[in-house]
Amino acid sequence: MSNTINLSLEQVFDSANSALLNQGFSAKQAEAIAKTVTNAERDECHSHGLFRIPFYISALSIDGVDAHAVPVIKKDDSAIVHVDGGRGFCPLALAMGIEHLSTTAKQHGIAAMAIHNVYNIAALWPEVEELAQRGLVAFAFTAANAFVAPAGGTQPLFGTNPMAFAWPRDNQPPLVFDQASSTSARGEIQLHLRDGKRIPEGWAIDKEGNSTTDPEEALAGAQLPFGGHKGSSIALMIELLAGALIGDLFSYESSKHDKSNIGAPFGGEFLIAIEPTRCVVDRDRQNQQRRAEMLFEKILEQEGTRLPSGRRFSARLRTAEQGVTVQSDLHNKILAYAD
Amino acid sequence: MSNTINLSLEQVFDSANSALLNQGFSAKQAEAIAKTVTNAERDECHSHGLFRIPFYISALSIDGVDAHAVPVIKKDDSAIVHVDGGRGFCPLALAMGIEHLSTTAKQHGIAAMAIHNVYNIAALWPEVEELAQRGLVAFAFTAANAFVAPAGGTQPLFGTNPMAFAWPRDNQPPLVFDQASSTSARGEIQLHLRDGKRIPEGWAIDKEGNSTTDPEEALAGAQLPFGGHKGSSIALMIELLAGALIGDLFSYESSKHDKSNIGAPFGGEFLIAIEPTRCVVDRDRQNQQRRAEMLFEKILEQEGTRLPSGRRFSARLRTAEQGVTVQSDLHNKILAYAD
Repeated sequence: MSNTINLSLEQVFDSANSALLNQGFSAKQAEAIAKTVTNAERDECHSHGLFRIPFYISALSIDGVDAHAVPVIKKDDSAIVHVDGGRGFCPLALAMGIEHLSTTAKQHGIAAMAIHNVYNIAALWPEVEELAQRGLVAFAFTAANAFVAPAGGTQPLFGTNPMAFAWPRDNQPPLVFDQASSTSARGEIQLHLRDGKRIPEGWAIDKEGNSTTDPEEALAGAQLPFGGHKGSSIALMIELLAGALIGDLFSYESSKHDKSNIGAPFGGEFLIAIEPTRCVVDRDRQNQQRRAEMLFEKILEQEGTRLPSGRRFSARLRTAEQGVTVQSDLHNKILAYAD
Repeated sequence: MSNTINLSLEQVFDSANSALLNQGFSAKQAEAIAKTVTNAERDECHSHGLFRIPFYISALSIDGVDAHAVPVIKKDDSAIVHVDGGRGFCPLALAMGIEHLSTTAKQHGIAAMAIHNVYNIAALWPEVEELAQRGLVAFAFTAANAFVAPAGGTQPLFGTNPMAFAWPRDNQPPLVFDQASSTSARGEIQLHLRDGKRIPEGWAIDKEGNSTTDPEEALAGAQLPFGGHKGSSIALMIELLAGALIGDLFSYESSKHDKSNIGAPFGGEFLIAIEPTRCVVDRDRQNQQRRAEMLFEKILEQEGTRLPSGRRFSARLRTAEQGVTVQSDLHNKILAYAD
């Protein structure tokens, strides 16, 4: 039984920000990370909330991480924005790059952003959601440490490689999904191990490549892509987009780089943003919106369905009023970092 | 036991083209369709080969199909190319549009093409492969008739909605995948029905939403997205891209449009093409290629794996020399169309 504490979102931000500053992050790096963490707590994505602060701080011990990195943006007259993260963390590179990506997408109708040279511990939904709040359709892709076997194989090679997508909606939060290309998150297997539970069939294989329901064997073996070879193809696509295409590391290289196994993948992120009104000759955004809403209604009129991100947005309404619940142990740890 | 006949690729093209011309297609529509069908036979994708010719011809009976349609391309200074297919079939719209998409992607670094007002019975790999042969990274998305229930739901709403991706490779065919967002192709369920076999668990549900292994109940019920809610999110994304975004029909509307259930979905297709060298500041294409090949080697060094499209490209080498094997019944049917 663990004790919990209720914090307002301002308190979440302040405790995260103070901890990061006190541990040696620059004001801008700390602010960007603390915002990302606060937004995750706001949406009750605890695994990307304050829980991640110790990861960011441990990662400072990795040779090459720059807690004072100032991202550099390069932009020519093309529709591609380049951001060199300077071996800092991704949130500041994103915060600085998104304005450029958004402007470029509105100018050309479609644009892409290659963020490289960053450590990425965060989820991808914040950036696609922000792009959608600016009226854009958005995609994001990133590789990670190598935990997932390619379909048919037995050894970890791909990361849990998430892909996120967002569609802007009028007068309400965008439709957003952000999903790993593995069947389960790695953290879910770790939770099963902690709780002494078996994992479902299809999540992982052991070191010899046999299907396993033992979480310990699963963590020593390899996770499986979701949906067999189709999820494996998506994982491969993401390695190519966030790795080879933008000149950054593949998951298996990022794992080698993360020598002390801190779980802070080093590499890149690739984003695409589309200005929807440029995709129809009549530029009728109202009609695009009306029709998308028709589809969402059709989905929701079936019992048992929901729209991606629905749970996050319900949580957001709740936490704005009621604050968030945080484990006291974790909160104390973060206070100690700030002390 | 069925008889087969061996045809050269030229003979495949000629028989398809003659059948289409004789049944009333314009020379340009017929040529584009016959090329698409021939390329499928070349790669031993028989389900998209001559087997499809009767579908194209039956579709002529659908109110509104224009067998003489001349696609119209609209292009401004943005990175978005619009193609109005004029209610003809997709292959001619693609054949005319791809040059524009390719030029636009090379100019801006990234570009998109919205093809609308077309009937699409073909696979998506030919167009992404052609873009990759021009040195581009490519995506294609299209909706289809409604056969797939959204995750958690029980009624067909999404199409089998394929997504295709291609990565250009030096001195060999591109890496390509083209995959439905349903667990199985609809045709696979039909083949199980024909052969009196049960289908695997996880492919479909019956009319009441219960899991079924009976192919007849499956066809009357709904197919399932691959990988549960993750495949369902991808199906939804494709409805938005190929439907709401470009002002074209959703799968459930396309089904209503296809009153006689011919299986010729009416709607749109959305493509994205990226000039890879614009995605790295040093424009070093050699390095992008070298690194992608490193990853492909890493995949293939694991026993049991393969690269997407490997089978198609092996078939291609074989059929160029040996021709293709076609069911005599089908070949006779196509000869009769031409007579």
